[in-house]
Amino acid sequence: MADTQIRFGILGCADIARKVSRAITLSPNTILYALGSRSIEKAKTYASVNNFPPSTKIYGSYEAVLDDPNVDAVYVPLPTSLHVEWAVLAAKKKKHVLLEKPVALNAREFDLIIEACDSNGVQLMDGTMWMHHPRTELMKQFLNDPNRFGQLKSVHSSFTFCAKPDFLKNNIRVKPDLDALGALGDAGWYCTRSILWAANYELPKTVTALRGPIFNESGVILACGSSLQWEDGKVATFHCSFLSNLTMDITAIGTGGTLHVNDFVIPFEENKAVFSSAFKSGFTELVTGWTPLPSEHIVPTDLPQEVQMVREFANLVKAIKESNSKPDTKWPSISRKTQLVLDAVKASIDKDFEPVEIVS
Amino acid sequence: MADTQIRFGILGCADIARKVSRAITLSPNTILYALGSRSIEKAKTYASVNNFPPSTKIYGSYEAVLDDPNVDAVYVPLPTSLHVEWAVLAAKKKKHVLLEKPVALNAREFDLIIEACDSNGVQLMDGTMWMHHPRTELMKQFLNDPNRFGQLKSVHSSFTFCAKPDFLKNNIRVKPDLDALGALGDAGWYCTRSILWAANYELPKTVTALRGPIFNESGVILACGSSLQWEDGKVATFHCSFLSNLTMDITAIGTGGTLHVNDFVIPFEENKAVFSSAFKSGFTELVTGWTPLPSEHIVPTDLPQEVQMVREFANLVKAIKESNSKPDTKWPSISRKTQLVLDAVKASIDKDFEPVEIVS
Repeated sequence: MADTQIRFGILGCADIARKVSRAITLSPNTILYALGSRSIEKAKTYASVNNFPPSTKIYGSYEAVLDDPNVDAVYVPLPTSLHVEWAVLAAKKKKHVLLEKPVALNAREFDLIIEACDSNGVQLMDGTMWMHHPRTELMKQFLNDPNRFGQLKSVHSSFTFCAKPDFLKNNIRVKPDLDALGALGDAGWYCTRSILWAANYELPKTVTALRGPIFNESGVILACGSSLQWEDGKVATFHCSFLSNLTMDITAIGTGGTLHVNDFVIPFEENKAVFSSAFKSGFTELVTGWTPLPSEHIVPTDLPQEVQMVREFANLVKAIKESNSKPDTKWPSISRKTQLVLDAVKASIDKDFEPVEIVS
Repeated sequence: MADTQIRFGILGCADIARKVSRAITLSPNTILYALGSRSIEKAKTYASVNNFPPSTKIYGSYEAVLDDPNVDAVYVPLPTSLHVEWAVLAAKKKKHVLLEKPVALNAREFDLIIEACDSNGVQLMDGTMWMHHPRTELMKQFLNDPNRFGQLKSVHSSFTFCAKPDFLKNNIRVKPDLDALGALGDAGWYCTRSILWAANYELPKTVTALRGPIFNESGVILACGSSLQWEDGKVATFHCSFLSNLTMDITAIGTGGTLHVNDFVIPFEENKAVFSSAFKSGFTELVTGWTPLPSEHIVPTDLPQEVQMVREFANLVKAIKESNSKPDTKWPSISRKTQLVLDAVKASIDKDFEPVEIVS
């Protein structure tokens, strides 16, 4: 089986890479092969503390990882402002790219990454883990069922967490030169993705940011929200924040059914996940209760969602390597749409909450 | 105990009066005493079909109910456009008034009702049943706990139901001359109330309707939403609709905690109700699960929420009758604030989604 395993290099010692490196180790079709950091000492310590395989190559630069001919794919968890530089270089070095979200500072920048991956024939996928949880597929089956859910009419999504004082002072996600979109690019990425997911990736016609965003002293968004409007009358709202208790909701309402999930980004528990569905909900006689009642669905998972993500990415890479397949275009297209909506929310905030048309 | 029972008259044979008449029968401190309709035949049939006590006086007009000296209080489920006329007349006849929502076509109209009740020393309360469920009090204790929920940062509320074609054609709630606020006055009333409830009835500074409301051919709202902004940075959104599957959500997010309830208007089951609370929610090491997990709370009910409402109203009436108490001002004040916000949402829709300041 050794010849079918995809060898991963990781660029940088980001906190999130601890979880993804474990996923690369756990995924049956990948090998955690290399780690590069600007400080080789830091990389050594990081690899050791996080139980990297002893065979992992440790490099004192990101370039060295990209120059290693044995590396098939790289995971890029660098600050967003560095994505274009390193994702484009990785593509040029024929490395497949698993890129953390937000994928870029804006869609124009992301297009440079897509272009580099396209012209070098490498796979591009973003690191939105929940997309790969088996629950996500089951929820989608419900949303796409005309006899149960019917036609989608509205979605509301929230992703908030209460950042600690140190995060609010020092984390890259509140620094204008590193992650300029702040909570919108981070938590808002998930909300936006969940809305597009529910809408089968149909882009909204217009996006109107909600009044009342909260900024830090450098002007980075700490909390904001938006409404989205589609041509067919569908609407959506989301709220994202670094300033409130951990909350991860999707409520999708159709003509016939309703979906609720309260831990969509990271399930409450690793080995199973739950969602609730209701359809043709009505009342008992005298309107003193509901009939039928909503149902709860429990989805067991053999592998955590981040492992499923790594496995799926590596399967695409393997098909390219072994069967000369073309890179899959679905994942970059979904990333780009998510980024387009984030850009529009930011533009609407900058334009005093005027609606912004989405032009794909 | 007979001398402490409050004698109720009902004005009209509305569908909702079936449930409230049962509540009056079930409440230990009230008697279902009289029913008036413009058609005495209709009233007789209605009383019989709905198991009114055989002793119930049946009148062929609303006036006759108000003129019966034995009637202490009236329940007014008439179309909204008739509320001022009949609630004011009831107050002048010294009848206490339990008034269906929305309480009026606008706050200016509702002020006429408040004034009439004030000057005649009668109690006024609206018919928002869920306010009286014991679950509501327990959820409030959680929201008001600085050590668990912390400071409120955002609320989202949805109330949607999928109206049948006959409703969309004939129901009073889609008729511009009867319930001009449509889904906003009906489902949106509950959303607005739930947001004000979570905010301890602090009025928002501004209200901005969301783009994309849906109207029927007479211009009555069938679906709409709004965002609300407070001086302290709190925000809220709601979505209400006659065109989507039954959904009744409140999600309130504080600095420390999160509250979820998915059946706030009418609990799934009559004899118990559930809500979920979480506080200081965080992640396990490696961010692969939550710790602590949210908790589910089950609240048993000895009496359905509409009976609790009738009982509480009758207790206030009794205190006025027997102890010369002043009418309670809390309930009319809450009704008025709810109406003020609805008026602002409507004004924002009419002003092309500009923010509207709330002036109390």
